[in-house]
Amino acid sequence: MSARRELHLNVNLLHAGVYPSAWRLPDSRPDAFVDIDHYVRVARVAERGKLDAIFLADTPAINDRIDHRPFMALEPTIVLASVAAATTHIGLIATASTSYNEPYNLARRFATLDLVSRGRVGWNVVTTADAAAGRNFGFAGASEHGARYARAREFTQVVHALWDSWEDDALVGDKVSGRFADSAKVHAIDHRGTHYSVAGPLTVPRSPQGRPVTVQAGGSEDGRDLAAATADAVFSLAQTIPDGAAYAADLRARAARYGRDPAAIVVLPGLATVIGGTEAEARRRQDELWELVPIAYSLARLAGTLRIDPDWLDLDKPLPDPLPLPPDANHTMFQGTVALARRDNLTVRQLLRALGGGVGHRIIVGTPEQVADDIEAWFRAGAADGFNLMPDVLPDGLETFVDAVVPILQRRGLFRRDYEGSTLREHLGLERVAWTPPAGRR
Amino acid sequence: MSARRELHLNVNLLHAGVYPSAWRLPDSRPDAFVDIDHYVRVARVAERGKLDAIFLADTPAINDRIDHRPFMALEPTIVLASVAAATTHIGLIATASTSYNEPYNLARRFATLDLVSRGRVGWNVVTTADAAAGRNFGFAGASEHGARYARAREFTQVVHALWDSWEDDALVGDKVSGRFADSAKVHAIDHRGTHYSVAGPLTVPRSPQGRPVTVQAGGSEDGRDLAAATADAVFSLAQTIPDGAAYAADLRARAARYGRDPAAIVVLPGLATVIGGTEAEARRRQDELWELVPIAYSLARLAGTLRIDPDWLDLDKPLPDPLPLPPDANHTMFQGTVALARRDNLTVRQLLRALGGGVGHRIIVGTPEQVADDIEAWFRAGAADGFNLMPDVLPDGLETFVDAVVPILQRRGLFRRDYEGSTLREHLGLERVAWTPPAGRR
Repeated sequence: MSARRELHLNVNLLHAGVYPSAWRLPDSRPDAFVDIDHYVRVARVAERGKLDAIFLADTPAINDRIDHRPFMALEPTIVLASVAAATTHIGLIATASTSYNEPYNLARRFATLDLVSRGRVGWNVVTTADAAAGRNFGFAGASEHGARYARAREFTQVVHALWDSWEDDALVGDKVSGRFADSAKVHAIDHRGTHYSVAGPLTVPRSPQGRPVTVQAGGSEDGRDLAAATADAVFSLAQTIPDGAAYAADLRARAARYGRDPAAIVVLPGLATVIGGTEAEARRRQDELWELVPIAYSLARLAGTLRIDPDWLDLDKPLPDPLPLPPDANHTMFQGTVALARRDNLTVRQLLRALGGGVGHRIIVGTPEQVADDIEAWFRAGAADGFNLMPDVLPDGLETFVDAVVPILQRRGLFRRDYEGSTLREHLGLERVAWTPPAGRR
Repeated sequence: MSARRELHLNVNLLHAGVYPSAWRLPDSRPDAFVDIDHYVRVARVAERGKLDAIFLADTPAINDRIDHRPFMALEPTIVLASVAAATTHIGLIATASTSYNEPYNLARRFATLDLVSRGRVGWNVVTTADAAAGRNFGFAGASEHGARYARAREFTQVVHALWDSWEDDALVGDKVSGRFADSAKVHAIDHRGTHYSVAGPLTVPRSPQGRPVTVQAGGSEDGRDLAAATADAVFSLAQTIPDGAAYAADLRARAARYGRDPAAIVVLPGLATVIGGTEAEARRRQDELWELVPIAYSLARLAGTLRIDPDWLDLDKPLPDPLPLPPDANHTMFQGTVALARRDNLTVRQLLRALGGGVGHRIIVGTPEQVADDIEAWFRAGAADGFNLMPDVLPDGLETFVDAVVPILQRRGLFRRDYEGSTLREHLGLERVAWTPPAGRR
């Protein structure tokens, strides 16, 4: 970590934008979610704004209500490989599941992407709770929470070991002697664990950043532990500064227990933005987006988060109290949603509006100055090292952020005026990972 | 198929070139095999030459002797996604294993690549015989030949069904009504087979070419059957015109038995090229490349093909006769190698030279005119619909082919002067695949 604490900003490239209705605005193209040019366009705006990275979420199944809105159709690593060719600095973070991939294939794909992008790649580790995904891979549904995380821990260890299977100087390339690589510096990992048995070595030499960045979005107990043990950066979910600060403190304490430097984890809460030239303009934009979200869709999303039947919800009454406690009630999204409703005693309709009809993360509505103030307040309070931005509409909402909010943050000395390095680790203020011999060997 | 038979040319993008020593030439860069710029450069030369496609081989393991030569380090679909961004017409074929992937992930990755490239993608189906690969995925080694092919057949069926899970007009995108997609036109496949259980639908809408092109390299009985049942194009291995013609006739007869149009399979034997301005110049180039191949490496490769110990081979004597019959003696590479040695009664050293020190496919050494004559003779004899070209050195050997051989083929009316379509299916003269309802439904 560099001595001075720095603000970091990613953008969550959620196809048309985080609002479920973003695709219905006059300037939006409904097919943007499957058009690579859209992803390139947004990535270039992010790069112009000197952001740290773009981020692609993923589930290997259709798990949203496709009658109503775009979804993550394209496989993220393929998209990012294409975006890499059209950009030079912006970091590239792709989500991939530990439940439905083989560690060797995943390690290889991200290592390749890291070479192709010259060291700009991050892997967002998810365990994929979605039952529809399980059915695409021979399972009746998703496996149990604890089992998924146990596999994820071992999976991540294997991937990290494979990323270290080549020493930095294993490639020789001496034309005179004919020695191409020094196979004594390319190591098997010989992993034999509970869930995986992987010999190695990886086919891919190490990249400029040593290892791709590891990202996590741990909310539950198991998720926080996995993040504390393995992640360089964490995408979190928090509605208030005290919640965000408590989360960051808890995560850093866990990291310290794993013998890690607590400051070496970058904590980035999600932040949806609706920005206007005046506060009234921003409110009008929010109203317009909200009115275009079908209420049935929005209700179904809320019922899904609460794990109840939509028929239990009355639009003009508060949430049922008590709510039936679902088996994974420590799910962060569940807790945040309930807290938000109870705090202001919202009716279901008011709650849906506050949630942006299904945005899922904290929403700020205001002027560029107000957005910058909010970001600064969270950053100074230690509730965030930066944010995983979710513009209401893409590329439009990101352009406004880059053109109006970023200059304010730069003037305040909070955000870089230009990239100082070329790898994602350098953007995030993280050290290059030094090569270490495979565990149990040497 | 168009009425007139057309010549098709792919280039096998084997990093530094098909000669194991290609990386040692003065103009070669040893790290080209992990440098995306190298792949882009070769793809652009291929596109300038109006070739059908570039092709990337693959094995998810280090299975070659990395002390001596480059190998397929990078994961091919990631490389091609990046190459797609830097090209407009050239087809993009990537190899992926049916033994070490999940059909849902593979179908999704290629469907994404097909959208990203606007319909230029092909999947080369392999079962991966390599034992080292098995050990990277929890197996003691590769599974038995017949079992691999039984899985491959079902795997390919599932992938094709997933590629058809969206009807062509399932995406609605009506901003006024708020209807995004018509989920009645997005179908589960509900596949429950011997090896796979996959619900679907795929997350990816259909691409401009309907389905990515399916490629196979079936040599064995099982391989030919799989190719005849599922492949649009076949990469074959033949040392003589009669061998090539017999292979093509056999494959088309099998395809007819599967109820397919025998003319709708494009047969492309491998052809390594060493081209010089004069025949003597080409021979000198061949000598130079041969002399830079370490003899121990070359011997080990031959012993591997013959499934015997290298110590059994005497450089100055013919191959042992009889050779011990390995369990997979119907392997095409084995048969072709033995036939080549016996035909001209070659010593092991002469055989190694004829094999280019480990090239593995037929090698033509000569002037552009001689190479064009050879291609025309095979094409007119029905031994090939074209070739999977393997230039000795890349990009150099391909540049010579494009600048000197392609114009001759064009003057003879054998090869296109410009692309007539934009998808790989159009280049190959194949129809767009019409949408069909999932098997057993509707």
